[in-house]
Amino acid sequence: MKLYEQVATELGSRIEQGFYRCGDRLPSIRALSREHGVSVATVQEAYRLLEDQGLAQPKPKSGYYVRLRPATPQLPEISRPAQRPLEVSHWEHVLDLLCSGETPGVLSLGRGMPDITATTLKPLQRALSEGKRGDSLRGFAYDSLQGSPELRQQVARLSIDAGCKLHPDDIVITTGCQEALSASIRAVTQPGDVVAVDSPSFFGSMQAIKAFGLKAMEIPTDPVNGISLEALELALEQWPIRAIQVTPTCNNPLGYTMPETRKRQLVSLAQRFDVAIIEDDIYGDLSFQFPRPRSIKSFDIDDRVLLCSSFSKVLAPGLRVGWAAPGRYRDQVMHMKYVGTAASSTLPQLAVAEFIEKGGYERHLRRMRAQYLDGRDQMIAAVERYFPAGTRISYPQGGFLLWVELPGDIDTLQLNDRLQPNGIRIGPGVLFSASGKYRNCMRLNFSDKPSAAQDRALQQVGIEVQQMLQEIDRVA
Amino acid sequence: MKLYEQVATELGSRIEQGFYRCGDRLPSIRALSREHGVSVATVQEAYRLLEDQGLAQPKPKSGYYVRLRPATPQLPEISRPAQRPLEVSHWEHVLDLLCSGETPGVLSLGRGMPDITATTLKPLQRALSEGKRGDSLRGFAYDSLQGSPELRQQVARLSIDAGCKLHPDDIVITTGCQEALSASIRAVTQPGDVVAVDSPSFFGSMQAIKAFGLKAMEIPTDPVNGISLEALELALEQWPIRAIQVTPTCNNPLGYTMPETRKRQLVSLAQRFDVAIIEDDIYGDLSFQFPRPRSIKSFDIDDRVLLCSSFSKVLAPGLRVGWAAPGRYRDQVMHMKYVGTAASSTLPQLAVAEFIEKGGYERHLRRMRAQYLDGRDQMIAAVERYFPAGTRISYPQGGFLLWVELPGDIDTLQLNDRLQPNGIRIGPGVLFSASGKYRNCMRLNFSDKPSAAQDRALQQVGIEVQQMLQEIDRVA
Repeated sequence: MKLYEQVATELGSRIEQGFYRCGDRLPSIRALSREHGVSVATVQEAYRLLEDQGLAQPKPKSGYYVRLRPATPQLPEISRPAQRPLEVSHWEHVLDLLCSGETPGVLSLGRGMPDITATTLKPLQRALSEGKRGDSLRGFAYDSLQGSPELRQQVARLSIDAGCKLHPDDIVITTGCQEALSASIRAVTQPGDVVAVDSPSFFGSMQAIKAFGLKAMEIPTDPVNGISLEALELALEQWPIRAIQVTPTCNNPLGYTMPETRKRQLVSLAQRFDVAIIEDDIYGDLSFQFPRPRSIKSFDIDDRVLLCSSFSKVLAPGLRVGWAAPGRYRDQVMHMKYVGTAASSTLPQLAVAEFIEKGGYERHLRRMRAQYLDGRDQMIAAVERYFPAGTRISYPQGGFLLWVELPGDIDTLQLNDRLQPNGIRIGPGVLFSASGKYRNCMRLNFSDKPSAAQDRALQQVGIEVQQMLQEIDRVA
Repeated sequence: MKLYEQVATELGSRIEQGFYRCGDRLPSIRALSREHGVSVATVQEAYRLLEDQGLAQPKPKSGYYVRLRPATPQLPEISRPAQRPLEVSHWEHVLDLLCSGETPGVLSLGRGMPDITATTLKPLQRALSEGKRGDSLRGFAYDSLQGSPELRQQVARLSIDAGCKLHPDDIVITTGCQEALSASIRAVTQPGDVVAVDSPSFFGSMQAIKAFGLKAMEIPTDPVNGISLEALELALEQWPIRAIQVTPTCNNPLGYTMPETRKRQLVSLAQRFDVAIIEDDIYGDLSFQFPRPRSIKSFDIDDRVLLCSSFSKVLAPGLRVGWAAPGRYRDQVMHMKYVGTAASSTLPQLAVAEFIEKGGYERHLRRMRAQYLDGRDQMIAAVERYFPAGTRISYPQGGFLLWVELPGDIDTLQLNDRLQPNGIRIGPGVLFSASGKYRNCMRLNFSDKPSAAQDRALQQVGIEVQQMLQEIDRVA
C-alpha cells in the first residue's frame, strides 16, 4: 500500500466510524501533513482518493468536507419474473425510446446517454480530427477484423483495473457494446436455446436473444446483490440454458454491483453446468467505488466468460467503439463480427487508442464519476421529494441510471404518453422484461449536470404520477 | 437528349460500325464543332462522355483516339454447382484471405480493396478531420438508428442514376455493405430456410447464410448473362427458398452485368414464387458503361427487393458506411441493425454526406472508372501472356475484380501456399462456393495502378501454375 493510500485509509475509517460526521470539515492538508509526517502532495493525493471513493468533497477555498450522503433510499424488492423461458417482446417500445432522443425540444430522461460536453473530452476530439499523423490513409483502409492493435493494447491495459489479465490477442474490437453482446450471444447458442438473464435486464441483449430465435429465462434479481444464484441454479437444472447474460457491475437498470463473493459463485455455477457467461461491463469503469470492482471475467479460470464492453458510456456512444474478450469463444465471435459488419470503422479506434495512451481516459473518468455521483444524489432527492409515498428507488453504485418503482397500478407506458405534451420522455419498465413485467417501473438518466430544467421535469413527472394514482383510486 | 449526347451518340455509332478502328485518331474538336455546327464546349462534353463509355481515350497534346479494346478473353463456362441446398463451409479460408492484407510486404492480389490513394479523395479526408463545423459534439452522440438524414438524402439522390426513386426514409444506413447484407438476409429468413445464390458468389453473404443457420442453393451462372433464370425457376419449384441473393451489376467475382431484360425477368420470377430478392449493388456505380446500368431495385414494383450497397468500393472501406433500401422489410432490417450494432459511427456518415453534396463523389467516380478500365485491360493482357493455354478469364463490365479459371486439376489453395515465399496471395476460388467448387479458380484485384511489381507478380503466378501443371502431368 502506498503512503497516500495509508493516509486515505486511516482518514476513511475515521469517517466510517463516525469520528467525522456528514458535512463536517476535515483536517486541513497542512495539519494532516504534520500529523502523519508526509508531504503536502501525499495528503493531496490521499484526499483525491477519498473524493473518488465518495467520502470527501472539496469546497472552493475552504478545504475538504465529509460528503453528504443521502440515506439509502427505499429499494425495490427482489424481482419475480415469469418462471419459464419466454420469447422477448416489446421491440416497438424499444424503438420508441431510441427515437425519443432524436426529437428536438424533448427531454429524454430514459436514454442511456452519457454527458458528452465535458472539456476533458476535448483531446479526443482533437485526436479524431488529426487522424493518425503521417498515416492519414490508414483511416480509409479496412481495419484488421480483430480491431486495431494499438487499441487492443490499450484495452488490455485498462482491463487490469477490473482484475483481468488480458493479452491484446484476447480482445476483439466491435461496433459498440451491442455488437460485442450480439456476437457473443450468437457465438454460444443455437436457435431454440435458452439464455438466462438478470431481471430487469438490458433491452439490447434481450432483443438480440429475440432476433436469433432464442428464449430468455428471466431470473429473480436483488437490487443489492444482483441475480439470485439460488433461482439461477434451479433454472439451470430445469431448462436447456446455454448461457447466462448479466450486467453485474453498475447494473443497467438497477445500479447494483454484485459482491465479489457472488461473482465468484456465479463462475462456479457456470462451470458446474458447463454454460457460458456473457458479462456486460459497459458501466463498470463508472463505479463510484475506487478502485473499481473486479469483473466476473477476472474470476474466469477456464475461459468461459465473454466480457463485453465499450467506450460508449465513459466517452461517447457516437464513436461506436466497443470490444469483447470472448475467452475460448474468440474464433466464433470473430466469425459473427465478420458476418455482421466485416470490420469496425478505423478512425474512431485510432483516436480512442491515442486518447487513452495520453492519459485522457483516466482524467475524464475521474471527472465523470464525480459528476454522476452528485447527479445520483440530487436525482434521488428530487424523486423522494416529488413522487408519491410508496415509491421505491434504486441506489446506483455507479453509472448514471436510476430505477424507480411506482406504487399502485400505474402503467409507465401510459405515463409516457401523458408526459408527451410536456416534452418529457421516461424509459418505460416493460422494455426491461421479456414478458411485459415492470409496467409500474421506469428508468431515469442522471448523466446531465443537475439543472433547474431537470428538476422541473421530475416535478412534472411526479405530478402526473399523483394524478394517475388519484384516477385509479376514483375508479376503484 | 442533350446536344452533346447527340454528338457522342453519332460518333459512338461510327466507332461501333468500324468507321473508325481501334487506335485511330478521331476528328479534332474544332473539326467536329464545324461539322455539327455546335460549340467547342459541346464537343468537349461529347468526348468526355465517349471516354466514360470506354470508346475514346485522350492522348496529351494529340487529341482523342479510339480506345484500344482487347478482344473479349476466352470466358469461363457457365458454372455447374451442386443441385441441392448446402451448408456453407470454408470460413477458415475466408479468414486467411481477410488477414492476408494485414501482413506487411505481402502483395494481396485477392482482396476486394479499392485504390484509396487518389487525390480526388482529399476533400473526403478534409471533411472527416473538420467534423461538422459548429456542431462538433454531434459526432459523439448516438446517430439516429436509421442513419443520418443528410446522408440518407444524398444516397437517395445518387440512387436515381441506377433508375431508382427512393425517399430518404426508404434508406437505412449500415456499418458497411456487410451489415446491409446480413441484416437483409436475417430479416427475410428463419433458421432452416434456403437462400438461392448466384455461383460463384460473394463469400460475405454466404458466411452470413452459414451463421444464421440457413442453407445456400447455388444456381448455375453464366459469365455474361448472370444467374440462370431457368435453373433458378427449377430450384424455386423444388426447394423451400425464401430469398434470392445476387450481385447482378459488376458481379463479384465474375464481373458481368445482367442485361436489363433478365433483371426484369428475375423480378417477375420472385413475384411468382413470392420470395424476396437481396441485391448486392456494391460495385454498381463502378460500371464501365455510362450512364451506369439500372439496378434490379429499379424494376421492383411491389417492394420485395432489398437493395444493399456501400461506399467501401467507390470511396474507402475503412469508413464502414453502407446502406440498404429494404422495401417492405424496412422495419425488420432496422431491428436487425439495432440488434447487431445499435447505430453506425456518426462522423464518417457526416463526412461522406458532405463529400457527395459538394460533388466530390462524381469527380472521384469518373477518375476511378477510367483507372479500373485501364487496369482491367492490362491485367487481362498479363494473364493471357503469363498463364498457360486453356486459362479462361472473365471480362469485367465494371469494378476491379478478375476471375481466372485454370486448366487441369490445379488447386488454387495449394497455389496460394506455393506463392507464400514470394510474398504473393491470390483469392482462392473455393471461397466463392458453398461446397468447395471452383478449386481451379482464383480472384484477382486490378484496382492498383498497373505497375512493374504487379506485372512481375502475375508472371510469378503464371510460372507457378505452369510448374504445377507439369507436376500433375508427370504423375498422370
